[in-house]
Amino acid sequence: MKALEERILAEGKILPGPVLKVSSFLNHQMDPDLMMVLGAEIAQRFQAEHVTKILTIESSGIAIAIAAGAHMHVPVLFAKKHRTSNVSGVLYQTLVHSYTHGTDYTVVVEREFLKDSDRVLIVDDFLANGAAVEGLCDLIRQASATTVGAAIAIEKGFQEGGKKLRDAGMRVESLAIVDQMDENGIRFRQA
Amino acid sequence: MKALEERILAEGKILPGPVLKVSSFLNHQMDPDLMMVLGAEIAQRFQAEHVTKILTIESSGIAIAIAAGAHMHVPVLFAKKHRTSNVSGVLYQTLVHSYTHGTDYTVVVEREFLKDSDRVLIVDDFLANGAAVEGLCDLIRQASATTVGAAIAIEKGFQEGGKKLRDAGMRVESLAIVDQMDENGIRFRQA
Repeated sequence: MKALEERILAEGKILPGPVLKVSSFLNHQMDPDLMMVLGAEIAQRFQAEHVTKILTIESSGIAIAIAAGAHMHVPVLFAKKHRTSNVSGVLYQTLVHSYTHGTDYTVVVEREFLKDSDRVLIVDDFLANGAAVEGLCDLIRQASATTVGAAIAIEKGFQEGGKKLRDAGMRVESLAIVDQMDENGIRFRQA
Repeated sequence: MKALEERILAEGKILPGPVLKVSSFLNHQMDPDLMMVLGAEIAQRFQAEHVTKILTIESSGIAIAIAAGAHMHVPVLFAKKHRTSNVSGVLYQTLVHSYTHGTDYTVVVEREFLKDSDRVLIVDDFLANGAAVEGLCDLIRQASATTVGAAIAIEKGFQEGGKKLRDAGMRVESLAIVDQMDENGIRFRQA
C-alpha cells in the first residue's frame, strides 16, 4: 500500500536485529490520520468476510485495530499480556514466545468476549516470526470461533511468519511487506 | 456525556474496590464507534486550544486517544510502561504509583516526540487518584512543553484525582463523572 510504504521510506530507521523502527508514526508516536487510512484499507479487503470481531494484542496493535473497527463497525478486543486485577471471570490464555526479548509471556482474553459464532479478524502492527498471530489464533480456537484472517501493517517478509501462516491456509493481508532492509535501504515486495 | 453514561449504566459492573468494570466497551473489548463519538466530543471541547499533540499511556488509553487524534488531526504519543528494546535514544521518564497494584512503575517517551513548542492534550480512559495524569504532566514538563489539559472518558468523582488536578489549575474534561457507585447503582455528576 503506497501511503504506508512511502511513510516507511520517509521515516523508518533500520537498527541492528534488523529492527525497523517506525516509532514516529506507527507504534510509539502514531499518526491517527494514517491509521484511519490503513483501517479503511483493511475494512475494504475483508468486507466479504462478515467479520464480527477484531482481535489484537496490546499495546501497539490497538491503534490500527481501532481504526479498522471504526470502518467495519465491529467490536475490537485486545489480548492482555498478563493477568491484571481488573480482568475478572474466566479467561482464555495462551503462551507467546517473544523473539525480541527471548522470553515467553502469557496473553489472556475474557471468555465472554469470544463466542463460537464469532468470525474474527486478527489485526496487528507487525508480523515477523508470527508468534503473536499464532497465539491469537490459539485464543480463537479455544473459543471455537472462526479466524477469517490476519491484517498486518508491516510484514517482515524476510522472516518466516507470513509464509508459515499462509502455508497453513490463513489469509494474511499485509499492507506493506519489507523483503529486504540493509545499508542499501528498504525493498518492498511488489503486489 | 449522555451516550457514555447510558453505556456505563447498561454494561458497567461494580466490583469490590470499588472498581467500575467497563471491559465490554472501553478497556478490554472496545466499541470503536463509541470511541469515535468520544473522540469527536474531546476534539470539540479543546478546539480552541491549538493542540499539537495528544499524550496517553498504554494500553487502555490508546483507543480513545487515537479517536480524538483522528478528529483533531494531531499525532498521538503513548507513554510506555517500561523500557523495551525497540525504544532507543534518549528518553524522558517518570515514576507512576499504581494504587490498584500497590506498586510503582516507570513510564517513558522518546525525547524527540515531545518538543518545547508542543501544546499537549493528555487523554486517558480513567481518572481516579490522578497518578497517571500527574506522571504524564511530568513528562511534558521535562520537555518544557505546555499541558493544555486532560480529557478523560470516566472520572471516579469520589476519588481525589480530579479535584487535585483542577485545584492545581489544570483543565480536566471528563466525559462521565461517577460520583457514587454502590448496591443502589451508579450516580453521575450533573453538568
